[in-house]
Amino acid sequence: MERIFNFSAGPAILPAEVLQQARDEMLDWHGSGMSVMEMSHRGKEFMSIAAKVEADLRELAGIPDNYKVLFLSGGASSQFAMVPMNLLRGKKSADYVNTGEWSKKAIKEAKKYCAVNIAASSEDANFSYAPAQDKWVLDPAAAYVHYTPNETIGGVEFNWVPDLNSMVPLVADMSSSILSRPLDVTRFGLIYAGAQKNMGPAGLTIVIVREDLLGATMSGTPTMFDYKIHADNDSMYNTPPTYAMYIMGLVLEWLKRNGGLAVMEKVNIAKTGLLYDLFDTTDFYHCPVARSDRSRMNVPFTLKDAALDGAFLQQAQARGLIQLKGHRSVGGMRASIYNAMPIEGVAALLQFMREFASDHA
Amino acid sequence: MERIFNFSAGPAILPAEVLQQARDEMLDWHGSGMSVMEMSHRGKEFMSIAAKVEADLRELAGIPDNYKVLFLSGGASSQFAMVPMNLLRGKKSADYVNTGEWSKKAIKEAKKYCAVNIAASSEDANFSYAPAQDKWVLDPAAAYVHYTPNETIGGVEFNWVPDLNSMVPLVADMSSSILSRPLDVTRFGLIYAGAQKNMGPAGLTIVIVREDLLGATMSGTPTMFDYKIHADNDSMYNTPPTYAMYIMGLVLEWLKRNGGLAVMEKVNIAKTGLLYDLFDTTDFYHCPVARSDRSRMNVPFTLKDAALDGAFLQQAQARGLIQLKGHRSVGGMRASIYNAMPIEGVAALLQFMREFASDHA
Repeated sequence: MERIFNFSAGPAILPAEVLQQARDEMLDWHGSGMSVMEMSHRGKEFMSIAAKVEADLRELAGIPDNYKVLFLSGGASSQFAMVPMNLLRGKKSADYVNTGEWSKKAIKEAKKYCAVNIAASSEDANFSYAPAQDKWVLDPAAAYVHYTPNETIGGVEFNWVPDLNSMVPLVADMSSSILSRPLDVTRFGLIYAGAQKNMGPAGLTIVIVREDLLGATMSGTPTMFDYKIHADNDSMYNTPPTYAMYIMGLVLEWLKRNGGLAVMEKVNIAKTGLLYDLFDTTDFYHCPVARSDRSRMNVPFTLKDAALDGAFLQQAQARGLIQLKGHRSVGGMRASIYNAMPIEGVAALLQFMREFASDHA
Repeated sequence: MERIFNFSAGPAILPAEVLQQARDEMLDWHGSGMSVMEMSHRGKEFMSIAAKVEADLRELAGIPDNYKVLFLSGGASSQFAMVPMNLLRGKKSADYVNTGEWSKKAIKEAKKYCAVNIAASSEDANFSYAPAQDKWVLDPAAAYVHYTPNETIGGVEFNWVPDLNSMVPLVADMSSSILSRPLDVTRFGLIYAGAQKNMGPAGLTIVIVREDLLGATMSGTPTMFDYKIHADNDSMYNTPPTYAMYIMGLVLEWLKRNGGLAVMEKVNIAKTGLLYDLFDTTDFYHCPVARSDRSRMNVPFTLKDAALDGAFLQQAQARGLIQLKGHRSVGGMRASIYNAMPIEGVAALLQFMREFASDHA
């Protein structure tokens, strides 16, 4: 079978060039006689890979020197606890913006460790929009403000960065949008992201954190949940997920060859624009998200008649368009269109959707 | 360059057949049109891979139905906290046997959560032996007894399983010895192991736990550190390290093709026996470990004259024998000889060591 177009929300499509290089280097990386999987994390070969991954991420995302970059495991789900355990720094509360499934998970976990003030919520409209900043009610005593710039399930994206105009650190779960557009890291205290959507394979989590926030971890925090331990040991306190770091390194090199984040942003606008334009010209498909807050990564939509969902998915699959089923918590369809999805994949999906709508008009 | 013989303590050598299969399937797993790295963890393709990994591990290790098998991330270092957080179950203390660097790390972390009784220690002889069970002083109030069946750094292995003759669960960090010999899981309450030594790539941790021990997790435990959450969700509470699980699956299939754990044990005795026999017939090399407790996985040794260490490592490397330097905490040399190390690799090392000793006699 040929390679298909994979619209999975994560783990997700990777650039074919990256997979080809990983294949070619599988048994012998750069003449070392070893697979990257077999390398000691403290050997010179892997140390050079790790250093390059960090340098390329710093270059692509413009990460200033006063921010640490950590390569961790445990997924964003571990960050839901690590953020309060590390960033409360003796304070008793934190602000959270509630925009959907992933926000809710972060909020639920934070409540184990502090009082959570819901600074804003879009629950009143079934999480279909990003609350404007003038609606946010911040707690002056909050240790930090947490939000989810892109809700992977709901397909709602903040197309702006909150301006807190204060010393309270802004914390962002960028799992599904990191590296999809240029990033001003200085606006954030901490950014975290699972790698398995836009950066690499599952099992690797990136944390970018301003170094002055480190070192006041809550008593009882597991050593492995202490950012400072990882920062002080260059993410080698224990064995990091080495092969996932290597693949992420190949993805970053691919991003650099292809123009970096500014080009990615243009391409991502163009790719999702094809679908959003379709929604605006037909009532066969419906996108529930407010126009200004539509995600450039995850496009949720429903069919006019849900009885057609099965046929839609089956016929899409027959054309090599897979993983279009919406998350089990919301139903409908979802096309995740990360950096690695070629525009040909979106064009093929669009063509199929037009034909399907025409066949069932 | 040809493939070399890699004696790294972990991440470590993998069977060449496994790497060849991973290479061949990199862009298209079984006609799916996808790399395993790109598969949704909830899709039917990856679900079938995950089910096969668990079934094969249960078959190889003889894991009874009343034990859960968890596929986690975070490494054994996370288990150092997860074990007390989950297994104290309201009790205030736990027994630990101190046999070296990894025991000490487990003990240090456990002290965050409970009183630690050192039931036995080999610190009196620089961690060169496994304390006999009649020397263990157990605390009747302990929630569990923790030990390290194989100390990766010190090269000390328990060639027997402690018989607690009680209801106190036995907990074992088997990171560097799991699957190296037959295993009677029923003797243990909980077994944990990082995959990156004898099972697969870094970033995957296996936990085998008797199910009656689950469900009494300490207040304040991060959700991701709660075994029951992972058990109740078949290790899919969040995205697991999918590609590492796939590689581990290939390793398990290789183990099954090659006779399983009983055959591995015989081969491992034969492989390390070649080196231990050499130590017994020369005073050029010295193994600090008590004869009865010598590891079948990690063979530490020193040269008669430490001034020759640099030349030894350099000449070994020139012959494609790499990662022989001892851990930075103990110095000297260490040859890690996991299941995947072919006997040809050990024979080549032996030949080199004989020649080096002869050249410097």
